[in-house]
Amino acid sequence: MTTTQLVQQIKQKQSFLCIGLDVDLAKVPSHLLTLEDPIFEFNKAIIDATHDLCVAYKPNTAFYEAYGLKGWQSLEKTINYLNEKYPLIFTIADAKRGDIGNTSSMYAQGFLADMNFDSITVAPYMGKDSVEPFLAFENKHTILLALTSNEGAFDFQTNTTEGEALYKTVIKTSKTWKNSHRLMYVVGATKAAYFKEIRKIVPDSFLLVPGVGAQGGSLSEVCQYGMNSDIGLLINSSRAIIYASNGLDFTEKAREEALKVQQEMAEIMKVASF
Amino acid sequence: MTTTQLVQQIKQKQSFLCIGLDVDLAKVPSHLLTLEDPIFEFNKAIIDATHDLCVAYKPNTAFYEAYGLKGWQSLEKTINYLNEKYPLIFTIADAKRGDIGNTSSMYAQGFLADMNFDSITVAPYMGKDSVEPFLAFENKHTILLALTSNEGAFDFQTNTTEGEALYKTVIKTSKTWKNSHRLMYVVGATKAAYFKEIRKIVPDSFLLVPGVGAQGGSLSEVCQYGMNSDIGLLINSSRAIIYASNGLDFTEKAREEALKVQQEMAEIMKVASF
Repeated sequence: MTTTQLVQQIKQKQSFLCIGLDVDLAKVPSHLLTLEDPIFEFNKAIIDATHDLCVAYKPNTAFYEAYGLKGWQSLEKTINYLNEKYPLIFTIADAKRGDIGNTSSMYAQGFLADMNFDSITVAPYMGKDSVEPFLAFENKHTILLALTSNEGAFDFQTNTTEGEALYKTVIKTSKTWKNSHRLMYVVGATKAAYFKEIRKIVPDSFLLVPGVGAQGGSLSEVCQYGMNSDIGLLINSSRAIIYASNGLDFTEKAREEALKVQQEMAEIMKVASF
Repeated sequence: MTTTQLVQQIKQKQSFLCIGLDVDLAKVPSHLLTLEDPIFEFNKAIIDATHDLCVAYKPNTAFYEAYGLKGWQSLEKTINYLNEKYPLIFTIADAKRGDIGNTSSMYAQGFLADMNFDSITVAPYMGKDSVEPFLAFENKHTILLALTSNEGAFDFQTNTTEGEALYKTVIKTSKTWKNSHRLMYVVGATKAAYFKEIRKIVPDSFLLVPGVGAQGGSLSEVCQYGMNSDIGLLINSSRAIIYASNGLDFTEKAREEALKVQQEMAEIMKVASF
């Protein structure tokens, strides 16, 4: 999917919500557990109930790998379902991969070509040749970890390196890499004030923002500092939506929660004249 | 496996060689391709031919994920084979994972408990709470990326952050984390001079060293600067051993290459009075 198509979807749906499909069998409604593939059935139900309210889905691969082969099968079924039934939805493999060049190429091929995700999250620690293989895929996007939403973000990311915070060095340096126009960045909502600084470096890039809601970030603050002329934000919410209920009404409750966020987004977009 | 057991194995085998099981179907002998699971059959043959010459095997997960479900099945069969037939061999899931706390826990459970690897490689960018879930497993080891063997290592890892190189800050900081005695570190052989600095910070930790051979690092230099009183090194070699031949003689040729490295190691250990 191109960035232009993503922006069109955002404007059409009046939403820049991304729903995190982090499926934990201990939290899904118990009536699904007797089905052959409860993870996929849960995802399918959540997707069908919310697809008109969000523009992206983001399965975190850890939750699938945790179930071994069965989990991978559920992940493949989920991405195939999304690509077939909702081809205009932006898909993110939240895999946080990164390795030496030829190895990164194998991850890129697996997620962006074979499984056909629109994008993948990638860790920057190993530098240029660990990220560029992901950037080689046309109309695909590499979402680089910049400033994450967890406490450990302050261990290294905000340290001053060569005169500026490491996360800024990461973003600046990444702009010099081949096909850097295919980069997006992970920036945690728990650090809204940082968005101002980040927008000075990458005014045009999309930012994937975890940490709104459950982790305490404020949507309006993130939008105040982070929105650009294309919106430029994908706000992720996982647990607050997908686990809104673990009863028979889980799809209705998930939809209600997604609708609340979508309406808040529509209001923000209206004020900002989108 | 405990560190003591690993050191015992090293002394007994007179080897601190780790063989990287990075299986690319384009490079394996063609006569294996007609078998039901060529990746596993290749690994099994390589393992049977070299197990007495090395102390560790390290499959890089990218090479398995690249083949989707089938690849994961081959990875599971490989680790099960190792654990059942060669329980004294140290196993490394070269996965380079790292995520927010509860998500890292799922990776840790999958690789260290369910699949029962002895260790896993982890990326440090997301800090303490992204790594500590891996450290929670007794008699398991977390191998933190410190200074990698690729060109991109110079993009961020060697940058001066808060007055010292980032890779040093990473190692120093990681020593303050809970169960840090279960940490090992990835340090590329292409940067042998750095080992001296690293040994000042972690004199006792094991270092996993890629980049000897194919990538140009020198075994004797690495040992000169990096060896400690427990040896403290695992030297990885992948392509030079496993792809020594792609003919019917691939196991013999792999054994020959592994033997060369083992003999060089035995000589170094002899000189150092191990």
